[in-house]
This record gives sequence, C-alpha cells and structure tokens, in this order.
Amino acid sequence: MTCFVLAAMTLDGKISKSSSFLTTEWTSEEDFLFMRSKLDVSDAVIVGRATYDLAKEPLSVRNLLVFTQSVSGIQREHGRLAWMNPAGVDVMAELKRLGAERVCILGGRAVYEWAFEQDLVDEVYLTIEPLVFGKGISLMDHGDYLKRFSLKSVEQINDSGTVLLQYSRALT
Amino acid sequence: MTCFVLAAMTLDGKISKSSSFLTTEWTSEEDFLFMRSKLDVSDAVIVGRATYDLAKEPLSVRNLLVFTQSVSGIQREHGRLAWMNPAGVDVMAELKRLGAERVCILGGRAVYEWAFEQDLVDEVYLTIEPLVFGKGISLMDHGDYLKRFSLKSVEQINDSGTVLLQYSRALT
Repeated sequence: MTCFVLAAMTLDGKISKSSSFLTTEWTSEEDFLFMRSKLDVSDAVIVGRATYDLAKEPLSVRNLLVFTQSVSGIQREHGRLAWMNPAGVDVMAELKRLGAERVCILGGRAVYEWAFEQDLVDEVYLTIEPLVFGKGISLMDHGDYLKRFSLKSVEQINDSGTVLLQYSRALT
Repeated sequence: MTCFVLAAMTLDGKISKSSSFLTTEWTSEEDFLFMRSKLDVSDAVIVGRATYDLAKEPLSVRNLLVFTQSVSGIQREHGRLAWMNPAGVDVMAELKRLGAERVCILGGRAVYEWAFEQDLVDEVYLTIEPLVFGKGISLMDHGDYLKRFSLKSVEQINDSGTVLLQYSRALT
C-alpha cells in the first residue's frame, strides 16, 4: 500500500486562512485539476470532517474515510463512505479491507499530522500558490520530526506562478 | 529602496524547530551560499534578536539593524550595528540615513511579520529544504492577507532536493 499526501499551501506555509475558508477560493485551476487527477488514481481518500464538508461534491465518488471525533469507532454511511474516529479504529485494517493500494491523505491539518505520526507518508505532492496569508492554518503544528524526503520533481504548472513539488520517502 | 525577504523553510512551512535551533543544522550548504551572495549585495540587513544571536559571525560585516524590545528607541553599538525597537523608531528614516538601496529582511518570524505588515516586501527568496518538522516556528503567524506575489523563478539548487523560489511584488 502506498499513502500519499496531497496539499496546497501558500508561500508562507498555510493550507487555509481558517477552517471555513474554501480552498478553491485561493488555489489555482491547475492545482484543482492536479488534485482531481490524483484522486482518480486513488483507491481510498482520507479527509477530516471540515475538509469533507467543504469538498463533498468532488469527493462523492471515492472510497472515503472521514475522520471525526463525533463517532467512537466506525459509522458507515453507505458502501463508499465511512465516518471514523482514528483513536478507536484500526485504520490500516479498514484500508486493507477496502483493498486500497493507493491511499490519498487529503487533509486538513489533523489528518496530515496523523499520517506523519503513523509514519504512513510515502509520497508528498505539494502545490505552492504565490500568496501570503499571514495568520492561518499550517500544514502541521504537532510532532517532533527531522524527517527527510527525497525531491522527485519541481515544476511551475501555470502562468500565475503555482509550483508543484513532488517528494517521496527518503531511503534510510 | 528595495526590500527583500530571505527565508529557508521546511516543506511543512517551518523556519525553525525552536528559537534556539540553529538554522545551519538543517539547511543545505547551497542555501547558505545563496544567503551569503544576497547578503553581499545588501546595503543593510534587518534581523531579530534571536536570529542575530545565532548568526553573529556571518552578519558581523553588514549594516545591521537588530530588532529587539529590550531598548526603547535606537541604541548604536558601533557604526555598523544598531539595536532598535521598531515600535519606537522610524526604521525607514534610519535605512535612508544609511543610504540603503537594497535591504535584506533576514527573519525570524517577528521581523518577517513586521516587513509584511509595513508592506515593505518587494521580493521574496524562499528556499525549501526537503524536510518535515511538524511542530515549529512558521514563517508568519500574524496578519490577515491575501497578498499575491509574482513567481520569477524556480530552481532545484542541489542533489539533496533543495528548491529556491524567487518572487516579486505583484503588480496591482
């Protein structure tokens, strides 16, 4: 199984201004298209509750694991959507049950933090939009790492100055 | 006068793990050489107290303005070094007095925040090291912007996967 992080951030390292701020208000169309192309090759997508609420439509056809503290274990809404409290569930077992080979970690921050804490992150696809927010939500705020990744590619993906960085787990 | 921000950050948007963590412990030699090349063409450098304490030696020959709250106005140590409380000093007047044409904003976070708040930032040179810290000090934590910059170049500067992004103030 391969798990990859998909994230868009400002040049000052923010994935959002606030939990109610829609990502598509500031990210580029090229970032959106790239996200869709990665979702299309994902067998399962893990998102947090706030990210799910903001992006229900493009996520509606995926195998979706929505992390939330408002359930204690797993609550299946239908065959392709499960609410899940990662503190009380064996998430890896659930991913295996789904036969997931490629798992997309779509955020927000708490989901990114969980994935790095579990050492699940094999690849990172990071889009940097040419904006500064100042105050906002960082990609991560917890964990104490000095974790090195291997840069696979760097590319400017539009005329507006959006940059896509691709990393993979560094060989140790 | 042109003011530019020089910053190195992790791929999760951190400029340091803590205020006592030496930048050169995790940044690349190529980032250090790039920083030196930009300092060499700077007429004045603005740093915060913690950054100055960590980098006295490479900074010792510059026109240095060290921001600190421990003085109330300006306290000149010698011709090339002045301690300064930006809340009580006309910093721009001081830069003009020095005849500074190119001013380097070297950080840390509070100095970056000050420069963006004053709308002084004409250029940003951002090095992204292929590391994840988790908890740490963000490039900025204050201010409420949706400030767009113009990407001038993007370049991988070494085999370790360090990327250098160059931005300038977007035309409005």
